[in-house]
Amino acid sequence: MPAGAYYSQDLHGPYETFDLGDFDLEDGGRLRGARLAYATHGRLSAARDNAILVPTWFSGTGKIMEQVYIGPGRALDPEKYFIVIADQIGDGLSSSPHNTPAPWGGPRFPRIRIGDDVAAQRRLVTEQFGIERLALVVGGSMGAQQTYEWAVRFPDMVARAAPIAGFAQNTPHDFLFAGTLSEALTSDPAWKNGWYADQADVHEGLRRHAHLWGVMGLCPEFYKRERWRGLGFVSLDDFVVGFLEGFFLPMDPNNLLCMAWKWQRGDVARHAGGDLAAALGRVKAKTFVMPLSTDMFFPVADCAAEQALLPGSELRVVNTICGHFGLFGIEPEYHEQVDSILKELLAT
Amino acid sequence: MPAGAYYSQDLHGPYETFDLGDFDLEDGGRLRGARLAYATHGRLSAARDNAILVPTWFSGTGKIMEQVYIGPGRALDPEKYFIVIADQIGDGLSSSPHNTPAPWGGPRFPRIRIGDDVAAQRRLVTEQFGIERLALVVGGSMGAQQTYEWAVRFPDMVARAAPIAGFAQNTPHDFLFAGTLSEALTSDPAWKNGWYADQADVHEGLRRHAHLWGVMGLCPEFYKRERWRGLGFVSLDDFVVGFLEGFFLPMDPNNLLCMAWKWQRGDVARHAGGDLAAALGRVKAKTFVMPLSTDMFFPVADCAAEQALLPGSELRVVNTICGHFGLFGIEPEYHEQVDSILKELLAT
Repeated sequence: MPAGAYYSQDLHGPYETFDLGDFDLEDGGRLRGARLAYATHGRLSAARDNAILVPTWFSGTGKIMEQVYIGPGRALDPEKYFIVIADQIGDGLSSSPHNTPAPWGGPRFPRIRIGDDVAAQRRLVTEQFGIERLALVVGGSMGAQQTYEWAVRFPDMVARAAPIAGFAQNTPHDFLFAGTLSEALTSDPAWKNGWYADQADVHEGLRRHAHLWGVMGLCPEFYKRERWRGLGFVSLDDFVVGFLEGFFLPMDPNNLLCMAWKWQRGDVARHAGGDLAAALGRVKAKTFVMPLSTDMFFPVADCAAEQALLPGSELRVVNTICGHFGLFGIEPEYHEQVDSILKELLAT
Repeated sequence: MPAGAYYSQDLHGPYETFDLGDFDLEDGGRLRGARLAYATHGRLSAARDNAILVPTWFSGTGKIMEQVYIGPGRALDPEKYFIVIADQIGDGLSSSPHNTPAPWGGPRFPRIRIGDDVAAQRRLVTEQFGIERLALVVGGSMGAQQTYEWAVRFPDMVARAAPIAGFAQNTPHDFLFAGTLSEALTSDPAWKNGWYADQADVHEGLRRHAHLWGVMGLCPEFYKRERWRGLGFVSLDDFVVGFLEGFFLPMDPNNLLCMAWKWQRGDVARHAGGDLAAALGRVKAKTFVMPLSTDMFFPVADCAAEQALLPGSELRVVNTICGHFGLFGIEPEYHEQVDSILKELLAT
């Protein structure tokens, strides 16, 4: 695949782009000619009160959110709701290291925070669609980080929130894990401090990065039951190459590094001088905190500890034997659980 | 530190060596001039019935087993028992890649199996000490693998067994984890396919290897409670450098790779044509299976599944917030629990 071909309308569309112009960043930089990729499903009601915002996770784009979470009869039903999927900055469709021209592209792409995504998304929903209040913000993993950021920062704009498998304040353990992902990429001599000619040059780093996901992204039970057989793989090694390496190989290392840096630093407490309880105390959204039962880096206990600080929230554990990758929805029971929980939340 | 200086009597002694001569290996190779490092504590009784064998874990030597597990008044009391700590092959004191002369040293060191360690240890205890039956075999992690191998292979020689934080049959998840450890080392260009001039040349790989341990060897709770403060570190980064990197930096990459390869393939089921239940069914030792409550790669559930196949065994979970590194015994409560469980086992 030619460099950049992965991040295309063919593979990830259809999507639109929203022009942010020169966009000032939380860390002090400026993203020039910034744009947010997004897709919508369904129709905005006349009262503009049926909008659902879906941010994206690390390495994913809006496409997988559409495929796994949206459909008629589902909780995220385009026949009832106006669903806006917003690609996070750095994901390859929105402004990202690989699609930003020199001198700002590649490893010189500015530092992006979860807060920048949410500020950009706020402009998208208000300026493009005139939405002043979202019926629901729901996202998984880094999408959960964005969901928490929305609920804390714009409490009057978020009626309901459903952070799935993610934190309001990233933990030091998770910080270290995401750091090893970055290190798998930057340790490849072909990475060349980010100045590789072609993302495929860095394939060894991308493969190592994939192997770390194989350990932390799934869980012991997934492998013990050989759940990969149900995905069409014939051996453990076949799964490692065909699923894990195959999934990450076409991606751009600088894009992944941009997102990993952002992920490591997700923390709503910075809106309250470092006081997590005070930050979460601002939330007005009815919130269902939805950890995955076998998640190795957003473990249930840590999600529950945050939920305990969230006024009027409820903890709803989603059972999966796929660890964090339960988010991919390969289990029919996953969809049933998530839909049931989100439908209940939407009915409140 | 000069190359090899880490594996010294100064740092890891006093220890003796037992000469195995030319030692034929399970995988078909031959380890020439093989030797096993060991240390003893206490006195062998006239009836030779008070011997305890303690094998070692990945990257450790007998020294840490002595420091953490042995002492007057402890379960492993040298005033009551004759305790033999046997260094595993590849650990740097016993025959290992770094101390084996050309052409067999370094990356050409032959493949070693857990079964080779146990066969060598059997020669040590029978030939050197005339011990025909061990009162207890106890070890953690790879030491637990050796403990299981002992109990399955020589059921009449093992009266009691205590595998702490380890498997009889390694899981695919753990196989993948140990694989990432090896990859962290072999991906360093300075590793040079194992032909580095000095182990310190491979320090970047050793540091990355240490970072992976930081994620999988400890656990979220350890970091959340900043338990590293009690170890004299002042920040997360200070702990990562001072403890994790500092611990692994002086080690020999080929030694670590030898042990990781062995660890990945630990499996008593090969003694029963792949039938784990049949293999464990041979065990005559009274066995306490002792997983650590927060272990991320030898999780309690997987240890319990093996224990369920072990006739007359009991599951004794040891609580720790240090994940797998609970084995290092930095918590006073760890010693109390382990001593209490082992004393009970020794009293049966």
